[in-house]
Amino acid sequence: MQFEKYHREIDKEISKIKLNNTPKELYDPIRYVLKMKSKRVRPILAILAYKLIHRSWKKIIKPCLSLELFHNFTLIHDDIMDKAPIRRGKKTIHEKWNKNIGILSGDLLMILAYNMLSELPKNMVSKTIARFNEISIKVCEGQQLDMNYQTQNHINEKQYIEMIRLKTATLIGLSLELGGNLAKMNTNELNTLYKIGELFGIGFQLSDDLLDVYGNKNFGKKIGGDILENKNTFLSVKAYELSTKDDRENLNYWKKNSKSSKEKIKKITEIFNKLNLKKITEKKIKLFFDLAYKKLESLKIKKLDKEELKNYLNLLFERKI
Amino acid sequence: MQFEKYHREIDKEISKIKLNNTPKELYDPIRYVLKMKSKRVRPILAILAYKLIHRSWKKIIKPCLSLELFHNFTLIHDDIMDKAPIRRGKKTIHEKWNKNIGILSGDLLMILAYNMLSELPKNMVSKTIARFNEISIKVCEGQQLDMNYQTQNHINEKQYIEMIRLKTATLIGLSLELGGNLAKMNTNELNTLYKIGELFGIGFQLSDDLLDVYGNKNFGKKIGGDILENKNTFLSVKAYELSTKDDRENLNYWKKNSKSSKEKIKKITEIFNKLNLKKITEKKIKLFFDLAYKKLESLKIKKLDKEELKNYLNLLFERKI
Repeated sequence: MQFEKYHREIDKEISKIKLNNTPKELYDPIRYVLKMKSKRVRPILAILAYKLIHRSWKKIIKPCLSLELFHNFTLIHDDIMDKAPIRRGKKTIHEKWNKNIGILSGDLLMILAYNMLSELPKNMVSKTIARFNEISIKVCEGQQLDMNYQTQNHINEKQYIEMIRLKTATLIGLSLELGGNLAKMNTNELNTLYKIGELFGIGFQLSDDLLDVYGNKNFGKKIGGDILENKNTFLSVKAYELSTKDDRENLNYWKKNSKSSKEKIKKITEIFNKLNLKKITEKKIKLFFDLAYKKLESLKIKKLDKEELKNYLNLLFERKI
Repeated sequence: MQFEKYHREIDKEISKIKLNNTPKELYDPIRYVLKMKSKRVRPILAILAYKLIHRSWKKIIKPCLSLELFHNFTLIHDDIMDKAPIRRGKKTIHEKWNKNIGILSGDLLMILAYNMLSELPKNMVSKTIARFNEISIKVCEGQQLDMNYQTQNHINEKQYIEMIRLKTATLIGLSLELGGNLAKMNTNELNTLYKIGELFGIGFQLSDDLLDVYGNKNFGKKIGGDILENKNTFLSVKAYELSTKDDRENLNYWKKNSKSSKEKIKKITEIFNKLNLKKITEKKIKLFFDLAYKKLESLKIKKLDKEELKNYLNLLFERKI
């Protein structure tokens, strides 16, 4: 695979992170989570942004790991908050150990993320950490909104998109921006890179929402998982927005019904079908991807050099990677 | 009060921290915790270390706030892990809101701590953050050990002291070190400052343990609180170490007994009295304080300038501040 070399080097660098051995209860979960199957999307995006200009990418892996460590920290804490038992096909930390160990090992992982950043070239540290913090704050805000919205019945499309922008897309934006920053791109170019990532990140999350209902087995997640957990998705939000009174009552009925999971998925999918939500969501996804690609085109860097990043974004979007 | 001016300026600087207003559920707890009554010990120690050399202390407050924010982050998460309902006479965050909000607002507070550090003079940032991380990791390790030891019956004095060193004393050490660092002291002086804080921090925690049993109303905490919660303290650890078989059975009996809190405190205190633990603990506290003061004497800075720091440490130790 074309992108496997990045993955391999990232894993190699992660395995070099010096971790103490005791207390075992603190470090075992961290080793466990860092060894989990992961696409390493964020550091790879940073590397590919760096490679828009420079070739020698291996030397910049270490600061890019901050993105992966921070992402994993958010997953551990989010999984506690969402009471999620499984992540990437394995037990979540609070399930395998307990909540307290989840809280504390997540905290430590965040500290380790900052450790990676403190090793940046000295003249870059302040600004990069300040920017990293800015995005981290948004990620926390997004997670809080996600929790708030779980208990509200009617959020609208705008609220939903803003929530996933904060929670997911900002860190994707930061990934490309960090790579560009390490390549010493100028402020305009960095803003553009951030924006590409943010737009792509929103599109990617929306396609995740779509695949939960209309995906095939390549997707790797169980179909209907979001429906069963009554998660807010682009489709569930639009369904409430577009439904007639009858459909809405039906949706509410099935939302509360947790007895027959197979039937629940079937019935809610039928309402989604009736409301043409597959097409509507595909159109929205295309909108964000087109905007992201347009931004990428606007980056004034030799065309040839953009191909690798484009290729990666495409494969990622098609879940072929 | 002599030290009130520091407290006032620290509070002023904390009130200037820019916090968004939404999501309310994320920022309200942070405002709540930052407004709680607090001695602001850590930033004040940093200021006093800085003042060993320089006079113009107001300009260094901002980076010193990182210590206070980090400390508050640990309190929020520790309180969740310890299921503590009250902190500084007020409801803890997870009690007033809920656990998820406690986890997330704690996370955000840690990010804000790093934000303060990113505003250090550029040539100081990398090294200072790396050192801050080193200590933060130790604080997490200490908290994990504390949790581990709660479920073990027999930890020894050495294990206990190492646990409180990691969990509490290292951050006190870092506080003095950060002040010295901002004053551009050399490595030797910084090591000494760290060590003073660490030794003082251990002594301070031990005196906290003592006052839980033998304190008076000035102490501000309920007498016997640690006993009721079966917390590991220097006294409980020594009691197991020094007790006869009968006393130990007695201790175990009362540890499991939670019906009569008044009698439990009385009975366990009687065993402590019998084992002469007041004297033994006082001796140990004196040992650590003497070592701390000896280290402070060894710092080769004009004697006059040390008085303020000494004075503060004394007042703090005597709980007069």
